[in-house]
Amino acid sequence: MITLSKTEREIIESSIRDIKDFPKEGIIFKDITTLLNNKEAYGVLMNHLYQRYKEYSLDYVAGIDARGFIFGAALAQMLGLGFVPIRKKGKLPYTTISQKYALEYGVDEIEVHIDAFGEQKGAKVLIIDDLIATGGTANAAAELVNQTGAECIECCFIIGLSFLEGIKKLEEKTKVYSLIEVN
Amino acid sequence: MITLSKTEREIIESSIRDIKDFPKEGIIFKDITTLLNNKEAYGVLMNHLYQRYKEYSLDYVAGIDARGFIFGAALAQMLGLGFVPIRKKGKLPYTTISQKYALEYGVDEIEVHIDAFGEQKGAKVLIIDDLIATGGTANAAAELVNQTGAECIECCFIIGLSFLEGIKKLEEKTKVYSLIEVN
Repeated sequence: MITLSKTEREIIESSIRDIKDFPKEGIIFKDITTLLNNKEAYGVLMNHLYQRYKEYSLDYVAGIDARGFIFGAALAQMLGLGFVPIRKKGKLPYTTISQKYALEYGVDEIEVHIDAFGEQKGAKVLIIDDLIATGGTANAAAELVNQTGAECIECCFIIGLSFLEGIKKLEEKTKVYSLIEVN
Repeated sequence: MITLSKTEREIIESSIRDIKDFPKEGIIFKDITTLLNNKEAYGVLMNHLYQRYKEYSLDYVAGIDARGFIFGAALAQMLGLGFVPIRKKGKLPYTTISQKYALEYGVDEIEVHIDAFGEQKGAKVLIIDDLIATGGTANAAAELVNQTGAECIECCFIIGLSFLEGIKKLEEKTKVYSLIEVN
């Protein structure tokens, strides 16, 4: 299994910007826009994901609304696969299945088109998002993929906030790969 | 300038699904998720965009929140460029500049990081989104790009609803390319 080299890690890590007190006081927000608009860093990242996932015999890449679309759509194109958006409630026009998940305060809901992964059952799906914190969204996304009759093979995150234990919980359901772990 | 061949157009057009009465009665929604999850059609589309824009000497590709992220991020990767997300108000963590624009009922606002297109002025930027209707969002996006000191070279849309005249209005400000025109 291909993982990040030291040089790749340094290039990617140093291109992510820390923003203090966003979206609220006490939180250090990991700003990936400085990774995305840096063509060297973005190229290194996407090439790494391509090298890792070309071995997986995947059928689809699914990205979580909205930053997961960025990495997921680019990776699907590189792998010659279809891309599936997993969206916040109310955005998809055709018949969907949906999953609620807990937020710090309240509940949110994501959904996917019921026919998103084709007519054959058992399509192999990679789910991708920019960051995993408590893992609520990713857990719901993996659940949704499996409910359509497809199979979530792995969840991939550019950044994992491992102190929040979302990765550990998600690993009870599927394989997890996070490139940059923040403790 | 490279435009769509008849075969490419047929493959792309036939992969877009019409959904009646979404998001409200009387509207036929163009569902691009059936284009995205069809690896042949998605591949043909992205290859076409790559062939067209590799001649443009672009510096960045900017995508409009959220479906523009899909095409924009994949295209930026193919061209070896950085990707810049233009986001709905409140999503970007660093200093932004923003633009309001009129909706059918009310007002919306998009923004971009002030340093998104680098320190040098005059970076050449392609803006991409899935669809142009009245053109309010795209106009605001082009305005934003120019306000950062960069230059919007062209706006690209997979689908143009030409009966709504958004394309005509946007052409007063920048070049416009829409692959599939719906009359």
